[in-house]
Amino acid sequence: MHIRVILPVIGDALLNHVTEEVQGWVGSGTTVDTASLARGTASIESEYDEALAAPGILDRIVEAKADGVDGVFISCFGDPGVHAAREIIDVPVVGGYEPAMLTAMSLGERIGIVTVLPNVLPMLHSLSRRYGIENRVGTIRVIDLPVLGLEDRETMVERLFEQSVDAIERNEADVLVLGCTGMLGVVQELMAKLAADGHRVPVVDPTGAAITWLESSHRLGVFPSRTTYMVPPAKVRSI
Amino acid sequence: MHIRVILPVIGDALLNHVTEEVQGWVGSGTTVDTASLARGTASIESEYDEALAAPGILDRIVEAKADGVDGVFISCFGDPGVHAAREIIDVPVVGGYEPAMLTAMSLGERIGIVTVLPNVLPMLHSLSRRYGIENRVGTIRVIDLPVLGLEDRETMVERLFEQSVDAIERNEADVLVLGCTGMLGVVQELMAKLAADGHRVPVVDPTGAAITWLESSHRLGVFPSRTTYMVPPAKVRSI
Amino acid sequence: MHIRVILPVIGDALLNHVTEEVQGWVGSGTTVDTASLARGTASIESEYDEALAAPGILDRIVEAKADGVDGVFISCFGDPGVHAAREIIDVPVVGGYEPAMLTAMSLGERIGIVTVLPNVLPMLHSLSRRYGIENRVGTIRVIDLPVLGLEDRETMVERLFEQSVDAIERNEADVLVLGCTGMLGVVQELMAKLAADGHRVPVVDPTGAAITWLESSHRLGVFPSRTTYMVPPAKVRSI
Amino acid sequence: MHIRVILPVIGDALLNHVTEEVQGWVGSGTTVDTASLARGTASIESEYDEALAAPGILDRIVEAKADGVDGVFISCFGDPGVHAAREIIDVPVVGGYEPAMLTAMSLGERIGIVTVLPNVLPMLHSLSRRYGIENRVGTIRVIDLPVLGLEDRETMVERLFEQSVDAIERNEADVLVLGCTGMLGVVQELMAKLAADGHRVPVVDPTGAAITWLESSHRLGVFPSRTTYMVPPAKVRSI
Amino acid sequence: MHIRVILPVIGDALLNHVTEEVQGWVGSGTTVDTASLARGTASIESEYDEALAAPGILDRIVEAKADGVDGVFISCFGDPGVHAAREIIDVPVVGGYEPAMLTAMSLGERIGIVTVLPNVLPMLHSLSRRYGIENRVGTIRVIDLPVLGLEDRETMVERLFEQSVDAIERNEADVLVLGCTGMLGVVQELMAKLAADGHRVPVVDPTGAAITWLESSHRLGVFPSRTTYMVPPAKVRSI
Amino acid sequence: MHIRVILPVIGDALLNHVTEEVQGWVGSGTTVDTASLARGTASIESEYDEALAAPGILDRIVEAKADGVDGVFISCFGDPGVHAAREIIDVPVVGGYEPAMLTAMSLGERIGIVTVLPNVLPMLHSLSRRYGIENRVGTIRVIDLPVLGLEDRETMVERLFEQSVDAIERNEADVLVLGCTGMLGVVQELMAKLAADGHRVPVVDPTGAAITWLESSHRLGVFPSRTTYMVPPAKVRSI
Repeated sequence: MHIRVILPVIGDALLNHVTEEVQGWVGSGTTVDTASLARGTASIESEYDEALAAPGILDRIVEAKADGVDGVFISCFGDPGVHAAREIIDVPVVGGYEPAMLTAMSLGERIGIVTVLPNVLPMLHSLSRRYGIENRVGTIRVIDLPVLGLEDRETMVERLFEQSVDAIERNEADVLVLGCTGMLGVVQELMAKLAADGHRVPVVDPTGAAITWLESSHRLGVFPSRTTYMVPPAKVRSI
Repeated sequence: MHIRVILPVIGDALLNHVTEEVQGWVGSGTTVDTASLARGTASIESEYDEALAAPGILDRIVEAKADGVDGVFISCFGDPGVHAAREIIDVPVVGGYEPAMLTAMSLGERIGIVTVLPNVLPMLHSLSRRYGIENRVGTIRVIDLPVLGLEDRETMVERLFEQSVDAIERNEADVLVLGCTGMLGVVQELMAKLAADGHRVPVVDPTGAAITWLESSHRLGVFPSRTTYMVPPAKVRSI
Repeated sequence: MHIRVILPVIGDALLNHVTEEVQGWVGSGTTVDTASLARGTASIESEYDEALAAPGILDRIVEAKADGVDGVFISCFGDPGVHAAREIIDVPVVGGYEPAMLTAMSLGERIGIVTVLPNVLPMLHSLSRRYGIENRVGTIRVIDLPVLGLEDRETMVERLFEQSVDAIERNEADVLVLGCTGMLGVVQELMAKLAADGHRVPVVDPTGAAITWLESSHRLGVFPSRTTYMVPPAKVRSI
Repeated sequence: MHIRVILPVIGDALLNHVTEEVQGWVGSGTTVDTASLARGTASIESEYDEALAAPGILDRIVEAKADGVDGVFISCFGDPGVHAAREIIDVPVVGGYEPAMLTAMSLGERIGIVTVLPNVLPMLHSLSRRYGIENRVGTIRVIDLPVLGLEDRETMVERLFEQSVDAIERNEADVLVLGCTGMLGVVQELMAKLAADGHRVPVVDPTGAAITWLESSHRLGVFPSRTTYMVPPAKVRSI
Repeated sequence: MHIRVILPVIGDALLNHVTEEVQGWVGSGTTVDTASLARGTASIESEYDEALAAPGILDRIVEAKADGVDGVFISCFGDPGVHAAREIIDVPVVGGYEPAMLTAMSLGERIGIVTVLPNVLPMLHSLSRRYGIENRVGTIRVIDLPVLGLEDRETMVERLFEQSVDAIERNEADVLVLGCTGMLGVVQELMAKLAADGHRVPVVDPTGAAITWLESSHRLGVFPSRTTYMVPPAKVRSI
Repeated sequence: MHIRVILPVIGDALLNHVTEEVQGWVGSGTTVDTASLARGTASIESEYDEALAAPGILDRIVEAKADGVDGVFISCFGDPGVHAAREIIDVPVVGGYEPAMLTAMSLGERIGIVTVLPNVLPMLHSLSRRYGIENRVGTIRVIDLPVLGLEDRETMVERLFEQSVDAIERNEADVLVLGCTGMLGVVQELMAKLAADGHRVPVVDPTGAAITWLESSHRLGVFPSRTTYMVPPAKVRSI
């Protein structure tokens, strides 16, 4: 299977890190390539950024379709461009939110998301309502680090741990979901720290959930429903 | 009060018609000007179109802010770019869906939307869930005319009437909402035809609802909440 | 447009104050007159009061209909008699709750209501469920002043401010709604105090929201749906 | 136990019939007396009627309290005055809707209500939302007979049967509830006709459900919660 | 009426206590007999226990059917085996949860459950969602005593009181429900202690609620709907 | 990875068929073994069957734990014993419903389930409410063949096709889910027939969804949350 990972930001600074991380999750027989955007924003932390990133993402979807890929991962927890992409390509497309949250729903009752900044909370609440799963979301919390500050790995892990423990102890979360696809390579460490602290609670990594989701969808032979994701009518488009 | 109407499509073909229609709704003391997009699509009938239109809409929001307008109407029933716009401007911004639906909620129990094509049904269902009002939506129907086919006014009115009567008689709607801002200048005729047919049921025009909503919001001195619509963090953006 | 304001309490003590306040909200071209009740209670702070006030309110609706008014505002946040009134008059009728809440829904995600006494909390929760918008209500709080104690304006403003700040800081409200139509003439001051305290959060005044709602509805040509608000069958009524 | 039945209409025409019916439901050791209203309407078939009936109902609640009764049944399916009554008396008070619906919830999945006229459908839908049980209501249907036309027993039973069978066969109801307390003395016959037709589906009589509910509540020693049904503050009331 | 009480645990240690308690709730004319299980677990405090108890419960249902009883109470708050039982017997069957919760819904707005151990919280939350009443559940709390530790009556009452007061004062409960049918004979004392502490809030005993529910259902002539609880097809069963 | 498939019925008749089917879904590096029950029923088509099957399923879970497997699939669409199993084993456990439905949620808006007999509809509706996803379920339909009649493959496929087309054309389903794990080896044929009929709508096979779900969960390093699925307290159990 051939997965295209779209990193929905401009610049190549993060590409190697993301590629490496994705390689760690893929199964045998899966090939992956990665592309960032020619137009967009340096990170996505608002509805504004998400709107600006969408055309650049859809450019990459058009390419992915031409390249005949078998699945697409738009590597951002806010699922930017995901629904538009499904209208124009016949293979499974996911962002970070949907596969991570659906995976989490099978592991415990209330899901706690830990994300970057307060700015994205309304977007994540909106997604939970859009997908009809808000009654399973117990809490959405922030570590107050911007996406581009996640390279301070130690601080990130420490704050993820603090917020996770607090959510568990207040009975607001039975499963945790990392709420930013930039929180790379920390999920095992976080689960280990929680276990060492007496909390046997699973943590879902959105990159891992997305990659395995695409592989499963591919094996199941499924694709975006054309009664939900209809092909857009032909017309003049200039963007 | 100064209202900026953004027609979120490329080309000026519809500008005069929209401007004229809007002038018919504004109250005394309100000035309106209208702008279409420099980049975008010829009409919005899919998530794909909506995503492509957003940057061009946000260009116009930046201009509107610089011009010091008092309110913005993005003239499309799918509310494209509305939430992103609220993050970057301090005055009320609405599309067609939200003010029409909230207005309708005070007029009867179940709301019936009649829109253009099946392609937009999932978007409209998603909006109802996002806004938390899906339990008030009784039916969403189509007249199977594309946006750019609405200039055939007679067919449009006939099909709106048929769908409206059917929705009422099946007890799926107590209030109707025109589900496309391109359905211009037909609301009074439709209500009259329904009344003549024995159905005293109100119909909400999304353009009228948006304009009066902005005027009311302005008089009430309200604005987008900065805890929901936070100002996007500064960063490189290239789009 | 001619709006009739019904102050749903007995006695004329508050009439001048309410009339003056309403005059501050109406648009040009709107005339307003005000009437209190011949039978009812001195204030409405319970389901019991609401039930006792309803016949006196409906007396005034019958008069309003005979007088050919274009819209009716029943000036109480609990929407007493509103749904019964819509059955017997063909023009828009609103109380304080519905227009204020629907207005607030376009300004931010979670709505915080600040009202007078704990006694009315169950009524307000019931209304949110009846209208199907309970998932948008983040908190309902009280300032522990009875309606007739609101003339102590300084205490009222101070407590409104305290409750508003607390609701915002605990992330329970993105928009505030004044939960009593007797909280007259304080909305701008409250928004200014919140802004000075660093909270750019809108506050909706129920009287202002009701008046602008009626004016908008009138301009839109809409009216109560006769499939929801059917005309009551003829019969003996002695009350 | 002493139960007071309040027939919330003016006139004594129906009193004997209701008294007789109630006597058929009470357990040993229960005494019942019945009172109609001094002011109100001839029947309740609209929000308007309900509002006009409430003060007369509350007059009877004050008397019931003075008489030291142990429970009150307000004999109307729309639960008129029930919540106001609970604020001013310390014993269980029910109408027809709440005990019948809660009883039905233990018998099958979807509840089908069969009531009198379309006029009351919005009231019944509102109650289901107010009580938070709308997801259990599968259908609400009418037999198109006014309350005062129910004395044509044969027509009533025939139409109840038709609507019940149709609801069951369309998979809209697993349990039926008679949606008017004036549908007296037919529940056993209706269940027998359904069984003879191959449908082993229970039907709940609202009068029977109310009487047994009060007896159970009395035996359980429960009463209206004073945090939901607070005592109304003292004030001038003139009605 | 003849009620069979099934105590869904192995061993006879608790049988006398339960029988005595049940005798205190039944009405005149009702006879009761009690049976524990031949196979199952010593108490039910997990989904695991519930699953292991079910066949032994269903053995007793088969006996109850053969004995021609008029109603069955499976004395456990988690409603173990209740839905399976309704498929194979034609008389009302209840556990502790459903009748207690439905009874509580008529007494106040938010229901607070106080149960034994954290282990059962997910089961109780699941039941509230299964029955569609989760929006009425304000809080579920534990006293951290296992079922078999409830014989320390003094500790049980003290902890029930503490949790109840805390739930009431935090506005999380208007009505309380004892969340274990092993909390025998304390409901009146708990209500008295709450009243003495200034909280006039009803408490529902699940055993009392179940017994009166069965008696009411019997008098109403109702039974499990055969469109929800269909008779299981014939097949080989070996258990 | 080592997956244990538990076929929750007595007898070995179906074991080879299931094993073969499962082998078709597993990824490279996964080993699978299969076991049916020593005690239980010949098929599961009611709550009664489900209750009788649970202890036999849990026997197999205890064995699976002792054998150190990495994941367990209980091969029945009703998820029998799944939640109890998660309490006593530390690796992912799924039935057919949860992974198939969560998978389907990423493919389209409304999910249509096509299952065997009307008897299981209430169980499936209950599961949708228990999991909090009922708003995504558009329809649940039956092909009116018992589980043990599914060996008539031609009839099964024909009826699945008929029900699927009808659900799609009435706009009740955008994604289909096979509602019985006994509907083996037909999903690709059904999708092909739908596509040939003009319906590009995905169909989810519950066995495939379960196997890929377990493999993904294993790769993600997740497990049942111990705050939802607490370890059952030690006690006497005799079953």
